Amino acid sequence: MLPERLRRVMELLARLPGVGEKTAQRYALYLAADRKGVAAELGVELAALGANVRPCDRCGNLADVIDGHAVCGVCRDRRREARLLCIVHRVQDLLAIERSGAMRGRYFVLGRLLSPLDGVGPDELPLAELSRRVREDGVSEVILATPPSVDGEATALLLARELAALGVTISRIASGIPHGGDLEFADQVTLGRAIDGRRSIG
Amino acid sequence: MLPERLRRVMELLARLPGVGEKTAQRYALYLAADRKGVAAELGVELAALGANVRPCDRCGNLADVIDGHAVCGVCRDRRREARLLCIVHRVQDLLAIERSGAMRGRYFVLGRLLSPLDGVGPDELPLAELSRRVREDGVSEVILATPPSVDGEATALLLARELAALGVTISRIASGIPHGGDLEFADQVTLGRAIDGRRSIG
Repeated sequence: MLPERLRRVMELLARLPGVGEKTAQRYALYLAADRKGVAAELGVELAALGANVRPCDRCGNLADVIDGHAVCGVCRDRRREARLLCIVHRVQDLLAIERSGAMRGRYFVLGRLLSPLDGVGPDELPLAELSRRVREDGVSEVILATPPSVDGEATALLLARELAALGVTISRIASGIPHGGDLEFADQVTLGRAIDGRRSIG
Repeated sequence: MLPERLRRVMELLARLPGVGEKTAQRYALYLAADRKGVAAELGVELAALGANVRPCDRCGNLADVIDGHAVCGVCRDRRREARLLCIVHRVQDLLAIERSGAMRGRYFVLGRLLSPLDGVGPDELPLAELSRRVREDGVSEVILATPPSVDGEATALLLARELAALGVTISRIASGIPHGGDLEFADQVTLGRAIDGRRSIG
C-alpha cells in the first residue's frame, strides 16, 4: 500500500526504543507529508552522526569526534574535580545528574548493569577500564550512582568490592522518598530505605 | 553538555507528533550509541524521502515519485471501482480502511477537517479538487469516512451539501459500538448512535 522507501523508513523508526509499528507509521507519515524540510534536515544530520559523535574515549558520555578523538564536555572542563568520580549506568543518568548541578566531579558510564537473568555477568562490565581510570586520574572518591533497582544495587556492590583494593572512598547515592513525594503511597522498600538512610539534623 | 550535532538531532526529533523533549533525547541517545548503522541508514533514507515520496497527485495518499508524477498504488490499480470514492481525513485513515479490506473503490484524502476553533473554515478544504475528481472520474457513489467526532461530522455535513449538486449517492460510515465492545462502558452518544443506526436483520 505504501511506497517501498516509506516502508523502509518505518522499519528503521520501529527500532527506536519504545516505538512499535503504529508509532513508526505515524512518524513516517508525518515526515513524508511535512513540507518544512524536517525529513531532509534530519536525514543529513543522522547520516553524519556516526562520523561526528561517539562515546567519549574517557568516560562514555557522548562527545564530538575531533581529529579521531572524542573527549566530552565534562572531561574537557578543567574546573571539574578529577579526583571525584561518579559512576552511572547510562548517558541519560549522567545528563540527569548534570541537570541537578549537584556533581562537581567527572563521570564513568558503565553502559550496562549486572543482570544474571539477561546473561550479563561481571565479565561484561568495563571493570578494567574503570580501575585504570581511577589509578590514572588519582581518583580519591567514587560515588556509585547506579539506579536503586535490583540490578543497580548488585552492580554497586560488585563495584564497591572491585574498587576497595584501590584505597578510594566509596559512597552510594541515597534512596528514599522523592522530593514532593507522599509517604502514604511510597512502597515498603523505599520507605524502609528512607528510614535506614535517615540523617541527623539536630 | 551534549554535542551540538546531537542537540540538533534532538530538536528535529521533537517535531515528530507526540514526541517531547525527553522522548527526543531518548531516541537521539539511542541513535548516537547504536553501532548497527540505524542512524546512518535512516539518515540516507530520510534525506532522499522528499524527492522520492509525496502525496499522490490524484488522491493524496503517499506515492512514489516517477518522472515527476506521483500516482499511488490504489489509483494505479485498474481493478478498483473508479465510480466509488471514499473520502478520508488522513493517510492513516486510508491505510486503516485498506487493512479492513472493505473498500473496493478509490480514495480522496482531505488532509484536514473543518475546525472553527482552529480557524479551519470551508475555504481551507480542497472542495474544488474534490468536485473536479468526482466529475472527471464519473464517480457515482461517495462514502464520507471522516471520523465520528465533532469536526469530522461537521466536515461530512459540509461535503454532503457540496456534493449534492453533483448527483452522486452519498453515504456516511456507521457509528456505534465497536466489534467486541461492551455496551455497559459505551458512552451515551455512541450508544445513541448504535440505536439510531440499527439495521433490520429479520
